[in-house]
Amino acid sequence: MGIAIPLEDRKQKATGLDTLLELIRPDLDRVNQLILTRTGSDVTTIPEVANHLISAGGKRLRPMLVLATAGMCGYRGDGHIKFAAGIEFMHTATLLHDDVVDESEMRRGKIAARLLWGNETCVLVGDFLLGNAFKMMVETGALRCLEVVSTAAAVIAEGEILQLNAAKDTKTTMDAYMAVIRSKTAELFAAAAEIGPILGGRCQADEAACRSYGMNLGMAFQLIDDALDYGGSSAQLGKNVGDDFREGKITLPVVLAFRRGDEQEREFWRRTLERGDIRGGDIEIACATMRKHKALEETIERAGQYGAIARDALCIFPASPWKAALLDVVDFCVERVY
Amino acid sequence: MGIAIPLEDRKQKATGLDTLLELIRPDLDRVNQLILTRTGSDVTTIPEVANHLISAGGKRLRPMLVLATAGMCGYRGDGHIKFAAGIEFMHTATLLHDDVVDESEMRRGKIAARLLWGNETCVLVGDFLLGNAFKMMVETGALRCLEVVSTAAAVIAEGEILQLNAAKDTKTTMDAYMAVIRSKTAELFAAAAEIGPILGGRCQADEAACRSYGMNLGMAFQLIDDALDYGGSSAQLGKNVGDDFREGKITLPVVLAFRRGDEQEREFWRRTLERGDIRGGDIEIACATMRKHKALEETIERAGQYGAIARDALCIFPASPWKAALLDVVDFCVERVY
Repeated sequence: MGIAIPLEDRKQKATGLDTLLELIRPDLDRVNQLILTRTGSDVTTIPEVANHLISAGGKRLRPMLVLATAGMCGYRGDGHIKFAAGIEFMHTATLLHDDVVDESEMRRGKIAARLLWGNETCVLVGDFLLGNAFKMMVETGALRCLEVVSTAAAVIAEGEILQLNAAKDTKTTMDAYMAVIRSKTAELFAAAAEIGPILGGRCQADEAACRSYGMNLGMAFQLIDDALDYGGSSAQLGKNVGDDFREGKITLPVVLAFRRGDEQEREFWRRTLERGDIRGGDIEIACATMRKHKALEETIERAGQYGAIARDALCIFPASPWKAALLDVVDFCVERVY
Repeated sequence: MGIAIPLEDRKQKATGLDTLLELIRPDLDRVNQLILTRTGSDVTTIPEVANHLISAGGKRLRPMLVLATAGMCGYRGDGHIKFAAGIEFMHTATLLHDDVVDESEMRRGKIAARLLWGNETCVLVGDFLLGNAFKMMVETGALRCLEVVSTAAAVIAEGEILQLNAAKDTKTTMDAYMAVIRSKTAELFAAAAEIGPILGGRCQADEAACRSYGMNLGMAFQLIDDALDYGGSSAQLGKNVGDDFREGKITLPVVLAFRRGDEQEREFWRRTLERGDIRGGDIEIACATMRKHKALEETIERAGQYGAIARDALCIFPASPWKAALLDVVDFCVERVY
């Protein structure tokens, strides 16, 4: 592991998101209420599908970033509630459209919406959420924030297309992979974290700092996700391990193991990920090969590095409960792998 | 036919969209240029897919409404260019997502994008266009217009879901059908026509008039489309006839023919449209049954009525080349059926 964590920090991190949740509880309740109201429709399919995903206990990480940075930046208005809900809508729309794209069977521990309602409904409910996200955020009148979120929407879609083009290609380079997750995951974290300082009327340096915090946190978050899909640092089999493998997704652990492997191992990755020819015991071989090349350790170390940059980005802000809670979020994201 | 058209008007209508095209040519060139620029991406799939549809010679009706109403309302700025391009992006995104939903094989006379690039790419390029539409329109800073287009985005998706729920259900009522096309088609025409007066700083009555013009024009446009799919007023077979029939789409001609038919005919519609059991000669039977019940004539008459309301809506505006051209658009939309 690249980052040694002193015992005292370890103790603190045990709180995870609790400190933050306590700080933003009243705001988060309003966000949840708004989400419920705005997914309401006489067309009953809409609340059904939307709530299948939204209430499926997503961690609400992105809305929490909006609320916490708004708090840290001394914002006193109501606009952050709508941006928090809007960004969660954008995220949920992405998940619904990803279901269609990935042909995945599980999502947030539930059966994928596409299997319950079909591809068509997933596409259209995603569009409904996107449309309503913008409607809700336009109501705030905060033009600079609207620029940030609409740019994010375009960048995310571009990243997803990049990922689709790289799919099942074991020759994907590390740079190409980093570009994909920067667009498809980190950009929305960055947008979420940038809303607070803009709404709070803070200087450009504060905006840039919060954006950098969100961007690097998002990178760390995605890399840990990638490592978790192969069982985390120990590369042992657990619940939900192997989804990426079965879908032929090229993630950083694969990129590393492929490059470090011999020709026989590369042929293994090509057979399983490119040609989709997966046999009994292959997932165990995949994990063992990753262990051998320390692919997961290095992925997690990378995540730790991004996490450290995220922490550093907040240095310019004076100490406050908000800032402390935002630093906890980094620990939470990076350390959920253990 | 419900509306008698004097010979003089008939002569004028022969110009179709020409008068309008002449008036807005410089603006439309800028819109086309902007569309090209904004579909550009290093991810080459994006311009490929987007331009397959956008340059496939859509009529650019919706952008034309933005430009013409802006002209009629004396707007002198640049914002209408971005809204015109943005609304065309929104429309194209809908077409791409519809391809996935409809499982259609042709679109604007070309092979459907989903058959060339796959469902995944269509969903994601649609999302890219939607995101960029908002990004582009947010750049204008015109908040009231942003409210109009984001509301439209939400309403359109809701209408599409309504349509999906009503799909293949021959018991669909006329009211339910009208509600579907109002949301999925007319709402975007209404939004397009409302941008001009808002940008031009006109009074609420002018805004409402333009919106009503767009809404009723959109209804007429969709009804004529529905009639054309069964060969227009003569119910004769022509090019591209029967797409809706083969996809089991319930449109106004079907609703009318089903209600006016006897039990044997209803069983025919249930077999073909609900159960998708279509045999040789069925499309001819469908057309003949519609002819018998005057289902297409009545659909076209309805379209004419909406067209008349659209024309009336513009009465409050003084005569101008713009107004005349907007009235021509109504004729163009309604009379392309002959």
